[in-house]
Amino acid sequence: MMRTRPLKVALLGCGVVGSEVTRIMTTHADDLTARIGAPVELAGIAVRRPGRVRAGVPEELLTTDATALVKRGDIDVVVEVIGGLEPARTLITTAFEHGASVVSANKALLAEDGAALHAAAEQHGVDLYYEAAVAGAIPLVRPLRESLAGDKVNRVLGIVNGTTNFILDKMDTSGAGYSEALDEATALGYAEADPTADVEGFDAAAKAAILAGIAFHTRVRLDDVHREGMTEVTAADFASAKQMGCTIKLLAICERAADGRSVTARVHPAMIPLTHPLASVREAYNAVFVEAEAAGQLMFYGPGAGGAPTASAVLGDLVAVCRNKLAGTTGPGESAYAALPVSPMGEVVTRYHISLDVADRPGVLAQVAMVFAEHGVSIDTVRQQGKDGEAALVVVTHRAADAALSATVEALRRLETVRGVASIMRVEGE
Amino acid sequence: MMRTRPLKVALLGCGVVGSEVTRIMTTHADDLTARIGAPVELAGIAVRRPGRVRAGVPEELLTTDATALVKRGDIDVVVEVIGGLEPARTLITTAFEHGASVVSANKALLAEDGAALHAAAEQHGVDLYYEAAVAGAIPLVRPLRESLAGDKVNRVLGIVNGTTNFILDKMDTSGAGYSEALDEATALGYAEADPTADVEGFDAAAKAAILAGIAFHTRVRLDDVHREGMTEVTAADFASAKQMGCTIKLLAICERAADGRSVTARVHPAMIPLTHPLASVREAYNAVFVEAEAAGQLMFYGPGAGGAPTASAVLGDLVAVCRNKLAGTTGPGESAYAALPVSPMGEVVTRYHISLDVADRPGVLAQVAMVFAEHGVSIDTVRQQGKDGEAALVVVTHRAADAALSATVEALRRLETVRGVASIMRVEGE
Repeated sequence: MMRTRPLKVALLGCGVVGSEVTRIMTTHADDLTARIGAPVELAGIAVRRPGRVRAGVPEELLTTDATALVKRGDIDVVVEVIGGLEPARTLITTAFEHGASVVSANKALLAEDGAALHAAAEQHGVDLYYEAAVAGAIPLVRPLRESLAGDKVNRVLGIVNGTTNFILDKMDTSGAGYSEALDEATALGYAEADPTADVEGFDAAAKAAILAGIAFHTRVRLDDVHREGMTEVTAADFASAKQMGCTIKLLAICERAADGRSVTARVHPAMIPLTHPLASVREAYNAVFVEAEAAGQLMFYGPGAGGAPTASAVLGDLVAVCRNKLAGTTGPGESAYAALPVSPMGEVVTRYHISLDVADRPGVLAQVAMVFAEHGVSIDTVRQQGKDGEAALVVVTHRAADAALSATVEALRRLETVRGVASIMRVEGE
Repeated sequence: MMRTRPLKVALLGCGVVGSEVTRIMTTHADDLTARIGAPVELAGIAVRRPGRVRAGVPEELLTTDATALVKRGDIDVVVEVIGGLEPARTLITTAFEHGASVVSANKALLAEDGAALHAAAEQHGVDLYYEAAVAGAIPLVRPLRESLAGDKVNRVLGIVNGTTNFILDKMDTSGAGYSEALDEATALGYAEADPTADVEGFDAAAKAAILAGIAFHTRVRLDDVHREGMTEVTAADFASAKQMGCTIKLLAICERAADGRSVTARVHPAMIPLTHPLASVREAYNAVFVEAEAAGQLMFYGPGAGGAPTASAVLGDLVAVCRNKLAGTTGPGESAYAALPVSPMGEVVTRYHISLDVADRPGVLAQVAMVFAEHGVSIDTVRQQGKDGEAALVVVTHRAADAALSATVEALRRLETVRGVASIMRVEGE
């Protein structure tokens, strides 16, 4: 059943992802036609600077008026790869109002405003797909939303930001400090001129919000995600990690509480054992573990960013929404029926690695141990290293609530014998 | 938009998978209802031995008349977890004729007769889904069929049989021989009483046929898959592999030829470097690499078998086909438009590790090297070990066509100085 009137696609943005989308739509047009059941035609490409040379991009399709493009009335699908909140949000909403389905790679917008966008799509009977918003080419949104639709996901744990993984991998393997590793990442094009969104964990937090929302059938917004960046991870932290048989990764962790009645979502650097599969995820690769009640542990691994991988995810969605258009239907929309409360970071239960600078005198360990005990935080191991009247004390705890650990650390800081808290890092993946 | 008339599901088979499907449908009924948009009701369960005790399975639903169950006329979805060709094929076809969609975990049937079944489903306007047929809970069918629908898959390389991976892992880590490792796998329930389907590669070959078909949009049948079992892998092979920094895995490999005009599918034991992610897949786990033009290298990892993981995949499909039923549509059917020829094993190009028992006398290496050269097979490395007038010669080749290698080995066997060919193993994943 091949129809000949082509489906019309409007592309918003023509940077690294947009130009790859254009290239693939042009060079693989016959395959896309066969897989969709109708030809797809690139009807227009909205860009900010039409004068810029874009190899392989038909100049006659370029326009600076994105609003007019989505309002044309004959557009079947809008592909949004501009990023950021505005004008993306308004353009997507306008697209819905004009009957177009939307494929987006916009993690920030979806984490901020996913519920409203889903509602708008449903109201207008169109699709909103966004596989490319999380972990580039790695299929994650579709497996969570469809393959695991009959299962109960308890945990999503992963490396979802390639820039920070490249930096941490570099620090781990070369012994470099943070700024040296960042410089290399910038020089190689893995980090942007302003790396804030990556290194402060904003990008990973947006992805955590999206993943938690889908995994737990609950609305989770960016604000619900506890976020700590990785700019303060030091070479000394890596040395400590190695002594424990661990390395350090920036992790996104979405968990269902043990009683099943609430969920948490967080992004922070953490130590993980070298034996854990995530420990061997190198360079800018991403990998995500999903633990489900019936399926057990699944892992998804691949390139988490880049023009071509992101375009692959965009085009997979494009085929799906085009098929839906032809069938006169829509795919699964938002599923937030569980509406579980998102608990604050204080209720997260995990393990901790704490380095203290203490006075090297008898009784200090006993004093420190007492503070942990008073706050109900059980110690797993303590390592003591003395030097010149000062000593370093490294404490690894058993599982404890984050609030209890914070209170412990506050009390430790008040101890006269504790000169400083050199680092606190969570230990995951055990 | 919740409707109240439940969708009716008939379950064919109630072994390890079927009883897990029943358990989850019962205990997670509310979640399934919310995710589908309507309640699902287990309307009947066809079993061979109704007297057997099945914990948690409602006895009043059991019937021995599977045909009558699928012919009832009010069944929306048939879940087939009987396995084997008949009566599964007839029951599935009958289900289609009576308007039911089918979710199947039956790799043998799909590899044998997938095209006819897809055609029958399409003719009757219903769905045929089978995520559970390949690699248990690991989402593979849906990612290949949907997430990568806008990409060009060039290669699928994976461990898709848990039983043989358990045996090979045991041989690798304990130095055990094949039959000792098989005995342990049998005792622990990883191998069946008759392990033929697993150890001779039939199970993996069926999965390879299904994966190749989806990946290359081409019909690939079980007969098209070159198949070698792993019963002849020895402890000596593992020792040789270790010397090369490799281990041995039973791999399913589906490849597009370099010119893109044909494909191959094969299952055989192969050496892979210890640095390759598949090398660290332990016990009965499965993992599959997918290489696509735009996406790059993706890996999917998880439990490849077992009641609960397989049930997870079945239920994901059940949710999808129920949603399609409610929307009055069907999901993507067979995509075989590319219709690429499947080339025979002789045209596969890969590397080889060959162990020869040769006479320990001058000139033997030159003679052997000449035979390789005459057949156009280029040698990468040779290792020679002499002992008591006999010597072992281990040759590792560069990439060469399988037919050229076979001809080389035949010629080597005819050499008077070659006492025997101890082993030939392909080297993959480099």
